[in-house]
Amino acid sequence: MDRIPGKKTTGDRGGAPPPALRNGVRRSDAGAVRDIVSSTGLFRPDEIGIAVELVEERLRSGPASGYHFLFAERGDRILGYSCYGPVPLTLHCYDLYWIAVRKEAQGMGIGRMLLEHSEKAIAALGGRRVYIETSSRPIYLDTRRFYERNGYRAEAVLKEFYSPGDAKVIYVKALEQDDAEGEKVRR
Amino acid sequence: MDRIPGKKTTGDRGGAPPPALRNGVRRSDAGAVRDIVSSTGLFRPDEIGIAVELVEERLRSGPASGYHFLFAERGDRILGYSCYGPVPLTLHCYDLYWIAVRKEAQGMGIGRMLLEHSEKAIAALGGRRVYIETSSRPIYLDTRRFYERNGYRAEAVLKEFYSPGDAKVIYVKALEQDDAEGEKVRR
Repeated sequence: MDRIPGKKTTGDRGGAPPPALRNGVRRSDAGAVRDIVSSTGLFRPDEIGIAVELVEERLRSGPASGYHFLFAERGDRILGYSCYGPVPLTLHCYDLYWIAVRKEAQGMGIGRMLLEHSEKAIAALGGRRVYIETSSRPIYLDTRRFYERNGYRAEAVLKEFYSPGDAKVIYVKALEQDDAEGEKVRR
Repeated sequence: MDRIPGKKTTGDRGGAPPPALRNGVRRSDAGAVRDIVSSTGLFRPDEIGIAVELVEERLRSGPASGYHFLFAERGDRILGYSCYGPVPLTLHCYDLYWIAVRKEAQGMGIGRMLLEHSEKAIAALGGRRVYIETSSRPIYLDTRRFYERNGYRAEAVLKEFYSPGDAKVIYVKALEQDDAEGEKVRR
């Protein structure tokens, strides 16, 4: 699944306070997710439909759905969100399914904030490795650079995956864990 | 997801006719799938549960579930089965989720028969690439060799995926297609 993070630039935050984070999911979030993902201009209707479906599945089945969300909001307005969950049949791997920032709120560090807090939440759930899948197409170059700047490395490339000439790139990051002695270790 | 094919050996078919193939799914298939997958001795209870869940999801939602099945049976007895389906958001990729042959029916070429007919069915549905994911553990060595003998190559390895020391190996095979001139071409 393709994703678009907030493009990380600096200096243009304009003094606004950082957005608040929320991990509970509300009925109105489905429409907000549709707006945010659509606003990026990067996704096809079928991809947007899947982003919304994950919210609806979470509303239907709760945490048992395997989909966890993090919303970044200022007042009533959701500026970006992430969606992640455990990879079935693995002991401690998580997928980051989506991370997206509303077009007009990009460049303020919201994508990075969402990514860092998603990783912390995953670690708190016992996750040790985070996978992100994205496309090799040039339009996703900024997206891939964002992951690389944040400690992800491309572990595998599946050629001709999405369509002819469009490969899937699988990124992974090993999370830091507190070991038995309380020291931070990178596995 | 891990899978176990029928071990392909020769000369021990004992004159029995080849099993019949069926692609319709019946309520009783859920129990048969549990028996077959359990009989291999290779799967944990949570993995067996997922194999059964795919049958149940197919019974609930029909072909819209995205899960297609092929059963090899002799009389009333199901000897093995495969389960495959389209990979969401891709134009022409399919996952082979499961292929398993009942322990006492292994070594008769049933796994190979299921694999070949699954590939034909995938091609008929417009699929051009088949992915199979399996484990790097030594217990799956025969499984991996079976895929390699049948034209699959390991395109990617995700280390520490299932558990520490247990990687995921992603196999792929490009299916032969009839091109515009009716000639077989390998893409």
